[in-house]
Amino acid sequence: MKDPLLLPELRELLSNNDVEGLKKFCQAGHPTAIADFLSALTPPEIRRVLGVLDPPKRAEIFSNLDEEVQNELVRELPRRELADIFTHMPHDERAQLFQRLSEEEKASLLPALAQAEREDIKKLSSYEPGTAGAVMTSDYATLSPDLTADEAIRKLRHEAPDKETIYYAYVVDDKRRLLGIVSLKDLILAPPNKKISEIMSTDIIYARVDEDQEEAARKISKYDLIAIPVINGDDALVGIITHDDAIDIINQEHTEDMEKFMAIAGKHSVGAYLRTPAFRHFRNRAGWIVGLAVAGFVSGAIIQSFEDTLRSLVILALYMPMIADTGGNTGSQAATVVIQALARGEISLRDFGKVLFKEFQVSLLLAVAVAAVSYIKVVFISQDATVPPEFTLAQIAGVIAIALALQVVTATLTGALLPMLAVRFDKDPAVVASPAITTLVDITGLLIYFYCARLFLGV
Amino acid sequence: MKDPLLLPELRELLSNNDVEGLKKFCQAGHPTAIADFLSALTPPEIRRVLGVLDPPKRAEIFSNLDEEVQNELVRELPRRELADIFTHMPHDERAQLFQRLSEEEKASLLPALAQAEREDIKKLSSYEPGTAGAVMTSDYATLSPDLTADEAIRKLRHEAPDKETIYYAYVVDDKRRLLGIVSLKDLILAPPNKKISEIMSTDIIYARVDEDQEEAARKISKYDLIAIPVINGDDALVGIITHDDAIDIINQEHTEDMEKFMAIAGKHSVGAYLRTPAFRHFRNRAGWIVGLAVAGFVSGAIIQSFEDTLRSLVILALYMPMIADTGGNTGSQAATVVIQALARGEISLRDFGKVLFKEFQVSLLLAVAVAAVSYIKVVFISQDATVPPEFTLAQIAGVIAIALALQVVTATLTGALLPMLAVRFDKDPAVVASPAITTLVDITGLLIYFYCARLFLGV
Repeated sequence: MKDPLLLPELRELLSNNDVEGLKKFCQAGHPTAIADFLSALTPPEIRRVLGVLDPPKRAEIFSNLDEEVQNELVRELPRRELADIFTHMPHDERAQLFQRLSEEEKASLLPALAQAEREDIKKLSSYEPGTAGAVMTSDYATLSPDLTADEAIRKLRHEAPDKETIYYAYVVDDKRRLLGIVSLKDLILAPPNKKISEIMSTDIIYARVDEDQEEAARKISKYDLIAIPVINGDDALVGIITHDDAIDIINQEHTEDMEKFMAIAGKHSVGAYLRTPAFRHFRNRAGWIVGLAVAGFVSGAIIQSFEDTLRSLVILALYMPMIADTGGNTGSQAATVVIQALARGEISLRDFGKVLFKEFQVSLLLAVAVAAVSYIKVVFISQDATVPPEFTLAQIAGVIAIALALQVVTATLTGALLPMLAVRFDKDPAVVASPAITTLVDITGLLIYFYCARLFLGV
Repeated sequence: MKDPLLLPELRELLSNNDVEGLKKFCQAGHPTAIADFLSALTPPEIRRVLGVLDPPKRAEIFSNLDEEVQNELVRELPRRELADIFTHMPHDERAQLFQRLSEEEKASLLPALAQAEREDIKKLSSYEPGTAGAVMTSDYATLSPDLTADEAIRKLRHEAPDKETIYYAYVVDDKRRLLGIVSLKDLILAPPNKKISEIMSTDIIYARVDEDQEEAARKISKYDLIAIPVINGDDALVGIITHDDAIDIINQEHTEDMEKFMAIAGKHSVGAYLRTPAFRHFRNRAGWIVGLAVAGFVSGAIIQSFEDTLRSLVILALYMPMIADTGGNTGSQAATVVIQALARGEISLRDFGKVLFKEFQVSLLLAVAVAAVSYIKVVFISQDATVPPEFTLAQIAGVIAIALALQVVTATLTGALLPMLAVRFDKDPAVVASPAITTLVDITGLLIYFYCARLFLGV
């Protein structure tokens, strides 16, 4: 959507102070596209563009800017203008922006807001990050069960200009307990005099305020909802999560899962790769890499303790990397498959035994295939290797193949087991990082390798 | 939603042939929940439950069943009942089901359908899988630009019972070219006599029929749409993709990306982990694992060619796995970060140089940290190692640290480079599998390691 040809024009409008031109420009596209475009300007320039717009439009474009740009603008804007933007922003986004402010900024902003806004912001930003409560919006339409369809449509029509969505309305009693849901489509199709209580659907899919946001998003996805109502401990309706937020949650969780699995500690906002300084990238990534290097002490010490074995049979040293690599590959694959099956709800902890048995079968098949390749490899590559007279190359290749087969089975089971253990202890299965599996099966692999050599070759 | 206590009750209703009871049961919950529940029955039982329902309800529950269960039922159902279900299913889902039928099943089904359905199915299933055309539905409301708001509402009300969504209506000319979009909210808020052409938004976000489905889903996500219109080469409206399909596409792409990156060739339907036979799992996973084992010929040959070096300095063999592991970890991390930044559109091919420079900076920092740890590790673990008199342990540890630092830089740059090269050649960056990176940097790492030893130690 960014059209570099238009940037000079926009700058010209700014330098000519062409208020009408700027207004027209900002009306001409989807607010997301306009916000994308404005991101190419400096914060003071963006502030000047936003300044010419009426408050609702200004808030709409502001809320489509990247988080980082929003943060910079907050520091630019006078309190009055910022309060105006807060008043007109979507309720969920302004609560999230509010949480990103410093304590001083919060203290300065609150008195400038009307009481209703102030309370709404305080309430929404009081929920634990990552819960349904923290991502819901308080901006939804409610109906009383004894309205008629016609009265309900008139009420929605009256409220529509200020509401994010009017396509679902929530039927609540006087304690805001959720009785049912009625879609605008149902209302339009119903006879005008029919009562809401007779039209509404009472078969409600809802989320709890302290539920994981991912769980709420999964319900929206599973039941094809436009929005899901969120209720508190007293069964009172406190907010809704809309379909677009569900997509954002799913995308964000996917990124986090992948980062966890690949052992990156990243806590960066979207759009930030190039803007993030190299040192921050380093900090996100170094923890694991250095930690794993430290964990390598164990495998280093194991190898060191078999120095004499290696000295008498150097050919064994040549195939240590193969043991490590194959174990890492099969273990990470098994973990990926199990993590995804858990994430999609295909398997649960109750299937523990079945999963391990399935992975065991798979690992036996993989072990046979990989052992065959490795036998051929050793015999072929190491034809000219120095082999002590008491052994034949075929014997050594056979032992390496047996060790590799055992390593494949162990690594596959380890990879399948760890995500299930994580779930057992209420952790996200994706915290089981692939490099951690690699490091772990390195250790088991080396032990298997050297004990096989000792057992079968007596070295 | 599956409640195991209810299953015996349901079976009892079935064995008593209690039609009213079965009907009531199927009306009592969300169709997705009912479908989940029915999945615990055998296909003939499911068929009997569906048989008591009226056709629209039957089709609704059927279309919420897992793909595999649908496939089994198709074989159970007589042609007449199947045609009934096809008539009432959502247009996009029936086209996808149709594509899964065998040629004989297709040929037998088509004559049983009304002409309109037949043509719709043929048209929708004619698009390339993976494109916007293949996932769109033909079930949407259109309006003519010279209707009034009031006339439009009446038209939508009339069509509502049969349409998947009426919350967006598409304004088209007599050649079905898309002129604008109007939301039901806009219509409700507009003065009754105002013309659609004056109310509609002409700033349309759309997808092309041959566009990647992921691209269309990303637009729905970015612009917070309930649905996106899909147009063909003549700019005529041919379908829409709805928000719930966008979530399905995003979830599916996430799974595929993760599987590609972890080198699994899986082409399995959702919900299938336990049902998939071990041999099929093996087939999905063996290609890569065995392929990588074969690729290990190269690193095996490299190590073999340095057998004499290793023989004279066995301590070098002890730290070969560390070189391989650290390279694999840093390379996969860099690839993950770059793949995600590409997927989110944070970087593009134009940033090639900037990305490499950023990763180079990160890799230098990582190299220093990891080299320091490895130096300490070698000195500490190998105190008792046999070191030839011409070298000190500190010298050897220094050379290993230098080699490791070079390996970290090379591996990080390789990991960052490969996904960008994939994009350059129009491939999905996630095809760059993490195990492939590991295998590649193994080779470069070994060469770096042995050449450093030769250069600095003369062995």
